[in-house]
Formats: sequence, C-alpha cells, structure tokens
Amino acid sequence: MTQSQINLIALPDIPDIVPGDDLAAVILAALERANQCLQDGDVVVVTQKIVSKAEGCAIPLESVTPSPEALALAEATAKDPRLVEIILRESHGIVRQRGGTLIMETHHGWICANAGVDRSNIGGDMGEVALPLPSDPDASAHRIREALQAATGADIAVLITDTHGRPWREGTVNITIGAAGMMPLADLRGTPDRYGYILRVTVVARADELAAAAGLLMGQAGEGMPVVLIRGAAYPRGDGCATQMQRAPERDLFR
Amino acid sequence: MTQSQINLIALPDIPDIVPGDDLAAVILAALERANQCLQDGDVVVVTQKIVSKAEGCAIPLESVTPSPEALALAEATAKDPRLVEIILRESHGIVRQRGGTLIMETHHGWICANAGVDRSNIGGDMGEVALPLPSDPDASAHRIREALQAATGADIAVLITDTHGRPWREGTVNITIGAAGMMPLADLRGTPDRYGYILRVTVVARADELAAAAGLLMGQAGEGMPVVLIRGAAYPRGDGCATQMQRAPERDLFR
Repeated sequence: MTQSQINLIALPDIPDIVPGDDLAAVILAALERANQCLQDGDVVVVTQKIVSKAEGCAIPLESVTPSPEALALAEATAKDPRLVEIILRESHGIVRQRGGTLIMETHHGWICANAGVDRSNIGGDMGEVALPLPSDPDASAHRIREALQAATGADIAVLITDTHGRPWREGTVNITIGAAGMMPLADLRGTPDRYGYILRVTVVARADELAAAAGLLMGQAGEGMPVVLIRGAAYPRGDGCATQMQRAPERDLFR
Repeated sequence: MTQSQINLIALPDIPDIVPGDDLAAVILAALERANQCLQDGDVVVVTQKIVSKAEGCAIPLESVTPSPEALALAEATAKDPRLVEIILRESHGIVRQRGGTLIMETHHGWICANAGVDRSNIGGDMGEVALPLPSDPDASAHRIREALQAATGADIAVLITDTHGRPWREGTVNITIGAAGMMPLADLRGTPDRYGYILRVTVVARADELAAAAGLLMGQAGEGMPVVLIRGAAYPRGDGCATQMQRAPERDLFR
C-alpha cells in the first residue's frame, strides 16, 4: 500500500467486437499498438459491453415475444415490452420500480437498473438489439486472464466492469461485475493507523476503485475506449471473484 | 473525452495536520518535494480528514455530554454515547439503524454511516476525539483551489473526498463531498455513441470516479497519503459544487 504513482492507459483502436471474437487476442494486439508489455501487478479493465458482444449475448428485439408480465411492466414503465421481457429473463426479481426506473436483481446477484441490459444498435444486420450482461462475468474475467497470462507470463488481474447508478447520488460510476487474479475487497480491519489506533471497519472495495479509475478513460458509451491498463496500483492478489462484493440480503438495509 | 493516459501521483511526506494549518501551503510544499508543478487541467484530491483537522473540527470526547436521545441510540447501537451525541449534532436525521449500523443524513445532505464522523486519536494532548466532516466541504475546496491557483496560475480542480459504504455492495469507496473548479456530473445525454445511437441516460459522476481513483493511493486510514494529484483526466470545467451530486429525495427510491 505504499505505491505512490499509478498510470492508466486506454488501449487504442480496439475494433468493433463481433460474436466469437477472441478478446485476449484483441487486447494483446492493442497492447502491441500501444507499445506496452504486460507486467506483474498490472490490471486489465474491460467493459462488459465488448465481453457481451464477443460472447454473443445480443438479442435482436424483433425476435422477442413479451410475456403478459412483461407487457404489464412495460406499460407501467413506458418501455419497449420486448426489452422488458429480456430484463425479466435476466433477473431474479424487482428491487424497486417507479415511473420509468426499474431496479432489478440479476441472476448473478447484482442490483442495477434494467438488470444491466442495454438497448443498442450494434451494427451489422441484427437491427436493434438488447445487450444483456455476460452470463458469468467472473468466468469471463478468468478466461481472459488465463489467455493473457499464457501469452505474456505476467501475473495480472482482469476486471469486467459496467456503469451503475447509485442510491442517494446522481450520476453513474464504473464498477466491477467480474474479476480474476485479485481479491476485490482489501480487508484492512485490525490494521493500526498512523497514530496506532486500530481501524475497526475498513474493508475497501479495491476492485470498484480500479473500475472507477478506468471509467475516467472509458468514455460515455463504455465502448469508445473499452480496455484500460492500470499499472502501479496495489491490490490484494488471490483467486477472488467479483461476487464476493455482493452484500448478503440479511446484511443489507436497502432492499 | 479523448484523453488516453492518466497519471495519479500521491504527494509524499505530508506532515501531521493541526488546527490552523494552511493546507494550500502544505500541498505546494509537497508538490515541490515531488518535483511537480501544477498544470492546467490537474485535479488535486484531498481527503476530508486533513481538511477537518486543519479547520479545527476535532471534538475531544471527554468534553461531550450526551443528550437523552444520544444515550438511547448509543444503547441500541452499542456505541459510545459521546460519539453518538456528536453524530446526532452533525445530522439532519436517521436514514436507517440496525444493530451497530447507523446511516445518517448529514446537515450537508450526504447520506453515510455515522454522519461521516470518525473516531480517532489525532495525537497531541486532546486525547480521543471525534472528527466530523468539514462544515462546508465545497467552500473548503473553493478556498484551497483559490490559493493554489493564486500561487501557480494553473486552472485546476480541487476535490475533498471521504470513504463511504454503499447499499448492496461490500466495501467502501472514496467519493467526493466537496468540489471546486469542475462540474461533478458529466452530462452526456443526447450524445450519439459510435453507432449513431443516442444515449438516453448517461450522466457520469466524474467527481466520484476521480475520488475513487485517488482512493487507490490514499491508503486505508485516508491519511497515509492524504493528497493525490491526477493529471490527464478529462472533466467538465465550471463553477460546480459537490452537492450537485445529491439526489433529491423525491427522485430517490432508497430512503
């Protein structure tokens, strides 16, 4: 925790991603264009959008038949019933709904607007699509990390991120939904501060701080600069996963 | 938004801060030790702890007489009644309480555990103290910015930050409670993405992403490295303040 400098580098000219693309190969090519070699301790941050695209998650809206539940919720929220149908399929349940705002708990356990499903036009001949989150972002991060480590020999971490809103505060921030090669929480309980006072509750969401930092470069659409390299950040190494950041319902005061 | 590299530098050897210290002078001296000159577009991120200390906010616990309300709430939360008294004085109201967890709305309008009041031993002969947030963090940021700009001529932003927990997610992240020289929210609504699709809801909490990035270097106690310089980040210039990030109660689904 005594690092005093961190560099963030957005990898240039990542091409449009299509189903079946090998993201590790795409990232290695972009690193080469940026004249960067992966080093031990680097963190590679990847927006979920290109992971979902590579994994073929996009669903053409014209292929979707809304259920009666989706039709009712679409009317309440003034959303496209086909989009609502996909949001419901991606979800464990509704956390809050008011007006057009729909806060869902996803099957992974993330709580976010519209279950993280984006509506987009991803080009090609699919027309307008819904783009859900990857089915298992921790597994996606793990696969990308394995491939990058096999190619470079560097001991790195990989994060898959998305932009979420928060209660009480306006504006979205980039957060982590998939992780490999690090513990997402830095547990500093019991560590003395500089006056020898023992910190009682200090568990830091290091993976979310890394995601937010990368968000500074990723740009509005989360795909202008979809991969950011972070060098110099201290984080707890280990075989962790992002779902370790999910608060258990019985410990949560806000659902 | 086309910046492709950001550097974060923790300023070294910031001394212990005592009431009356001139933080701008402290920061300028630390910049000189780091061989850094402020440049246009830099962001100087300062943890609230040293701002509160410099502004003399610390309250010796032995000087506090708890009210009946504080005594009752201290019993419910198993906290020191004197600390609870100070938390109540700093607050507009209780948002949630369960067990030892006390989520308050501060007089400034921030929603956070214990109204942001830390218990600490800040050294010297004050004994154990409670350290509340600065009384007006936006004004504190404004004063520090004015002094840094007067000394250097650089057009910069200054953020005052604190570490907060969040609903649904474990772990704290560093967030912004005071800002000067920037708009904390980057409003990208109506901007076309790379496929020409108009983004409908994309307001990014740029000030919170900057705070989280700085949090990577600030360390666990929020005072190991209390000042971080961020260079190369794009942010909306302007005469904004952190309270612009507070969501109005009628727009909030979680209080």
